[in-house]
Amino acid sequence: MRGFINIVTIVLLLGTLASSQHPILNLTAEEVTEINGSLGSVPLFDQQLEVVKSQVDAAIAGGIDVPIPKDMAGGYTHGKHKENYKLMQKAGNLYQITGDESYAAFVKEMLMEYAEMYPNIGRHPANKSYATGKIFWQCLNDANWLVFTSQAYDCIYDYLTESERNKLEADLFIPMADFLSIENPRFFNRIHNHSTWANAAVGMIALAMDNDSLLQKALHGMEDDGIDPNEVDNDGGYIKREGVYQAGFFAQLDFAFSPDGYFAEGPYYQRYAIFPFLAFSYALHNSKPELDIFNYRDAILKKATHALLLLTDGKGNFFPVNDAMKGMSYQAYELITAVDIIYSLDANDELLLDWAALQDQVTLNGAGFITAKALMDHTPKLPAKISQNFNDGVDGTEGGVTVLRNGGLEVLFKYSTQGMGHGHFDRLSYGMYDDSGEIIQDYGAVRWVNIDQKAGGRYLPENKTFGKKTIGHNALVVNRQSHFNSQVKEADDNHPDFLYSDFSDSQVNMVSAIEKNAYDNTDMQRTLFLIDDDSSESTIMIDVLQATSTQANNYDLPMWFTGQFLKGNIDCPKSLTMLSPLGEDDGYQHIWKESSCKLTEDNYQFNWLTNLRFYSATFVAEQGDQVILGRNGANDPNFNLRPDPVIIHRRDGVKSTTFLTMVESHGQYSSVTEIPINPYPKYHKLRLDYDKDGYIMCSFESDDTEWQLLYCSTSTDETKQHKIKVDGESYKWTGVYQLTKNSK
Amino acid sequence: MRGFINIVTIVLLLGTLASSQHPILNLTAEEVTEINGSLGSVPLFDQQLEVVKSQVDAAIAGGIDVPIPKDMAGGYTHGKHKENYKLMQKAGNLYQITGDESYAAFVKEMLMEYAEMYPNIGRHPANKSYATGKIFWQCLNDANWLVFTSQAYDCIYDYLTESERNKLEADLFIPMADFLSIENPRFFNRIHNHSTWANAAVGMIALAMDNDSLLQKALHGMEDDGIDPNEVDNDGGYIKREGVYQAGFFAQLDFAFSPDGYFAEGPYYQRYAIFPFLAFSYALHNSKPELDIFNYRDAILKKATHALLLLTDGKGNFFPVNDAMKGMSYQAYELITAVDIIYSLDANDELLLDWAALQDQVTLNGAGFITAKALMDHTPKLPAKISQNFNDGVDGTEGGVTVLRNGGLEVLFKYSTQGMGHGHFDRLSYGMYDDSGEIIQDYGAVRWVNIDQKAGGRYLPENKTFGKKTIGHNALVVNRQSHFNSQVKEADDNHPDFLYSDFSDSQVNMVSAIEKNAYDNTDMQRTLFLIDDDSSESTIMIDVLQATSTQANNYDLPMWFTGQFLKGNIDCPKSLTMLSPLGEDDGYQHIWKESSCKLTEDNYQFNWLTNLRFYSATFVAEQGDQVILGRNGANDPNFNLRPDPVIIHRRDGVKSTTFLTMVESHGQYSSVTEIPINPYPKYHKLRLDYDKDGYIMCSFESDDTEWQLLYCSTSTDETKQHKIKVDGESYKWTGVYQLTKNSK
Repeated sequence: MRGFINIVTIVLLLGTLASSQHPILNLTAEEVTEINGSLGSVPLFDQQLEVVKSQVDAAIAGGIDVPIPKDMAGGYTHGKHKENYKLMQKAGNLYQITGDESYAAFVKEMLMEYAEMYPNIGRHPANKSYATGKIFWQCLNDANWLVFTSQAYDCIYDYLTESERNKLEADLFIPMADFLSIENPRFFNRIHNHSTWANAAVGMIALAMDNDSLLQKALHGMEDDGIDPNEVDNDGGYIKREGVYQAGFFAQLDFAFSPDGYFAEGPYYQRYAIFPFLAFSYALHNSKPELDIFNYRDAILKKATHALLLLTDGKGNFFPVNDAMKGMSYQAYELITAVDIIYSLDANDELLLDWAALQDQVTLNGAGFITAKALMDHTPKLPAKISQNFNDGVDGTEGGVTVLRNGGLEVLFKYSTQGMGHGHFDRLSYGMYDDSGEIIQDYGAVRWVNIDQKAGGRYLPENKTFGKKTIGHNALVVNRQSHFNSQVKEADDNHPDFLYSDFSDSQVNMVSAIEKNAYDNTDMQRTLFLIDDDSSESTIMIDVLQATSTQANNYDLPMWFTGQFLKGNIDCPKSLTMLSPLGEDDGYQHIWKESSCKLTEDNYQFNWLTNLRFYSATFVAEQGDQVILGRNGANDPNFNLRPDPVIIHRRDGVKSTTFLTMVESHGQYSSVTEIPINPYPKYHKLRLDYDKDGYIMCSFESDDTEWQLLYCSTSTDETKQHKIKVDGESYKWTGVYQLTKNSK
Repeated sequence: MRGFINIVTIVLLLGTLASSQHPILNLTAEEVTEINGSLGSVPLFDQQLEVVKSQVDAAIAGGIDVPIPKDMAGGYTHGKHKENYKLMQKAGNLYQITGDESYAAFVKEMLMEYAEMYPNIGRHPANKSYATGKIFWQCLNDANWLVFTSQAYDCIYDYLTESERNKLEADLFIPMADFLSIENPRFFNRIHNHSTWANAAVGMIALAMDNDSLLQKALHGMEDDGIDPNEVDNDGGYIKREGVYQAGFFAQLDFAFSPDGYFAEGPYYQRYAIFPFLAFSYALHNSKPELDIFNYRDAILKKATHALLLLTDGKGNFFPVNDAMKGMSYQAYELITAVDIIYSLDANDELLLDWAALQDQVTLNGAGFITAKALMDHTPKLPAKISQNFNDGVDGTEGGVTVLRNGGLEVLFKYSTQGMGHGHFDRLSYGMYDDSGEIIQDYGAVRWVNIDQKAGGRYLPENKTFGKKTIGHNALVVNRQSHFNSQVKEADDNHPDFLYSDFSDSQVNMVSAIEKNAYDNTDMQRTLFLIDDDSSESTIMIDVLQATSTQANNYDLPMWFTGQFLKGNIDCPKSLTMLSPLGEDDGYQHIWKESSCKLTEDNYQFNWLTNLRFYSATFVAEQGDQVILGRNGANDPNFNLRPDPVIIHRRDGVKSTTFLTMVESHGQYSSVTEIPINPYPKYHKLRLDYDKDGYIMCSFESDDTEWQLLYCSTSTDETKQHKIKVDGESYKWTGVYQLTKNSK
């Protein structure tokens, strides 16, 4: 406790002695002058101003409520405090932009109520978090509060008297900054989105108060945190990252993103994490330009913003890998802030302007003003999106994700690191999307965020027992067991490897990755080819999944197709009068077994209809293979799972083997014209003609064309010549693969 | 066969002797002149012209194919012939409007191919219809072909030489008209949408050929059809309607619609049926103005068009009662045609212009041109929709449907006649909708129209075993048996009765109807009150379902809510490891039983989330009541059913009883902000305070208000004074009901 008292003393001294310009965090005095002089002439900004005004005016009319903290997420006090900090931030901006003192008075009055309450409350009564907060059930939300409130305080700083400021700082801000750091080192000193919020909260209130000692702590972390390396958080993630001793904001910038701007937990959490990165950086950019924060680590925040925007499907929703809620999109306020701030730093980044035009909203700060102004002279087009790799790991060598985009389809291939506590055990899985939505889904998290009825909006038990399990993904399950036997530590310690990708051919885009650690004695390599057949409306994905094993295994390859099963080429009738779960654990216990049969033909082919589009999948069958049709919802006492369908290709009792699958997008339907266009696939007769020593030859055909794919999965040398002999005939090619199409 | 030969002879004579103006069916020469002079000045018409041009140009470039008929709906030959007649009709219009002879040549060439083929084909090989066609598997599609082709022929009539016309008429049109009438009396001489198509087909080709004898047959039917009154069609509907001996187009106009323009099969089929009504009437309007056809039966076609438009939900989709496919809407070409034709007859009908503006398409005829021109000076608004009754039966006394619209909700209450072979056994059922879609659904038909994988697009077996059954609807099931024991004949012979409705109060709209024949010894009355609580965001529906019986019954009241079950106030856990069907027949065999429990509280209340909206339902429970949660899909070998959820309120072993249910719309959620607004209902403590001699008193409350509903279900006298004594206290009111709200 000695250290604590010392820091408080220093802070109080600094707080009263220092003097600096305000506002400086989210707006500067110069920006305020310019915005003020341009009101009424920048339509999107004016429009936003009106929206925010009417929100805050209504809140002022409704009166202030600062309730004693009590509820979990989804409950009243949680919602109210969340609303309060957002309102204060908005009112602060409004005060600066309009000069109307009623907004400043509103912020002041609310802050004073918080300053009255804060010294008298202990930790939140819920006590459900590894880092319980005071205003909220977790420190994370308290940090959210302080990030937003710092901006509000900064805006009304000069409106307050010195004694008012002293009271707020002594009773509220400094105790809260200390609570979020010294008193909660597990929360403050991690490399994690939680700590990014903590660092930003402490750093931003430090800037607002001009408190350098707090600022240094925010930037560089606490030296001695005494955290046990085996401690975990609520999501099962480790507090400490092996080999990483740094902490604080710079360490987050150093370690949170890969060099490509990818965030290991996936885009849903990256969206959440990027806000404190940007809000704090923007404040530093304004107040400490010498740090040149937006160029830090080769402009990592710009890369992270672009990565986020490009990790969206055709509807603009983030690919829902790992713990992710569906429907979160580029329209989130974090992305609006990100687009505006990053654009304001580089007026040449027209891609961001295209995104800003789609968002049709801006933030009420200088960056938003610049963006809104630029949009007045900008003819927006749909933001360009192409196939792209995003590496993972701090140095970019720990796998990653690839988006294949071709022929109207998007495939997100995942070979990234585990993503800590929010990671799923789904090495080499993929999801498929078209502009109507999900075609082959990633389930996302079993959670209903902020919906009180569902355990207060927290992660539900089925997230662990199903959501994270391998069978819940489009990933290979060996011996009915999840990757890494569902051990986060082992999974975090090992990553898949990127092998090769080629996006240079407009007809086919491809990517390959390998995973050697998910199972003992069994390696997996998956290669996806996304083929746009110009001569038809079809787009084809060829999925080559090679399992190499020294032992006989039972393999399951699930495909979580969305929508309505239409028909298969083998009669595989549904269970009529009884359903049982597919298994007893590892996620299988949550799947009702609806249908299963032995595959008697060389190919199993079925069609489904989703979002009024027709899709088909073709599996190459080996002797003894089965398909199983299932549906989510067994062992789900509280109706937490969605009743989604899955088809599983099962191959039992073999050592090394290759699963060859073709997915074809071929047609559409209209409920108004009732006309189906191309309800049946164009391609069939999928054959694995050769599969030896890493060499694959496969073929498929339509009524008038024959296609052949030659592929060497073991070399990435683009100049190497390959030759295989199949049924006495020689096939030669140069480089990793060769795809040929011939008329019949 | 003697009659057949005679008619052909007369027709040939008339065909060669007569001479009249062309075009006259879908366009007139005067209209052509006017349109021609205005090209480039009426944007919507010009735009439509370009769309159609590019379609037809592409077809001309692609070449003509008139394949030998072979396939069912969904197959190639079916689709091709359907495409062909639509193309011919479009090309005919284009020829007239643009004067470009290549369009006429295209129609001529295609017609000649049909004339070559037609004499050489017999009945369609599928042989699956009660009236098998020649070009298609059913006469119905052949009639579609002839309706469209008549318009095409009329457009190029003057382009053809006399000998070309003679060939087409002798080899194609007259044999086809005879085939659709004389050779298929069951198809031609019914009161049914099939016969409307048949009458229109024969009548329109008669007008195109100026063949009066065929025209008379089309207008007045065949006198002697020799049909057995017990014959049924493929849908189980009776060919003949009891007591109706008329046939032909006038008889369709007389019997198809109720005086309010409602069509007994429901809006989905009304949409399908209205096209031949309008296409033929428009041709008669142009060529036989003396018939004054659009004023026939008090302008029944105008009423039918308005009824159709008003029987749509907030998204413009038809309420899917009876055999209906979901998603069919005001955007269907039949409705575009209807809106344009009816508007062109009455320029004061601004409501239709609002619909035309929403459609943003017009037909390529004089009516479409008038509509497009009128839209240039029209400021469109959302078409007005209010609560409304639509009576059923030829004289309007056989029940009907009511749309209640209040507080953002729409409820379609169904107490109409059976609707012949396409009717469902769901007396007094309802569906609930908001502007996001279905909240409490009507399942519609178990069918995937035109999707070949699903039995060629035909009705599936589960339509009979589930789709039509009472348990598949939001309707009361007595003793686990469907209404009328699923007998179409009995159901057709009996109708529910409308009792009372009141839409005069903006706070509450209500309707009541009664059904006395669905079960022996048990009558049902249902009264729905849709209440807009101005003081909150809630809208409430109070559902009073009174069953009056002389015997003890087992009652099931299903509610097919859509979306995700969130939580109930009683712990009613889901079956974990085994699912069985809810019963063995009458639709129960298709529902997996997921959960059930005895109701131990006075109220069972649960919430669900659908389309990001929060809803709750509250059931008043009596001693011994149960709730059952189920899901569709048992005994469904071919995955024909959607896996939709249902909750059933079960009350067994009682005689007369009242089910009192409250449904509340109270909140919404955003996947982007993740903020739930009002996730919990405002209202609770639903009580049935009094239930005797047809008098009902019920009450419910929020935290700050108490509501009371006093209702006399046995009198519709609005001036009558009522008095009941409840727990020693007297309650008085005047008229059918009284709703009061008091602060606590």
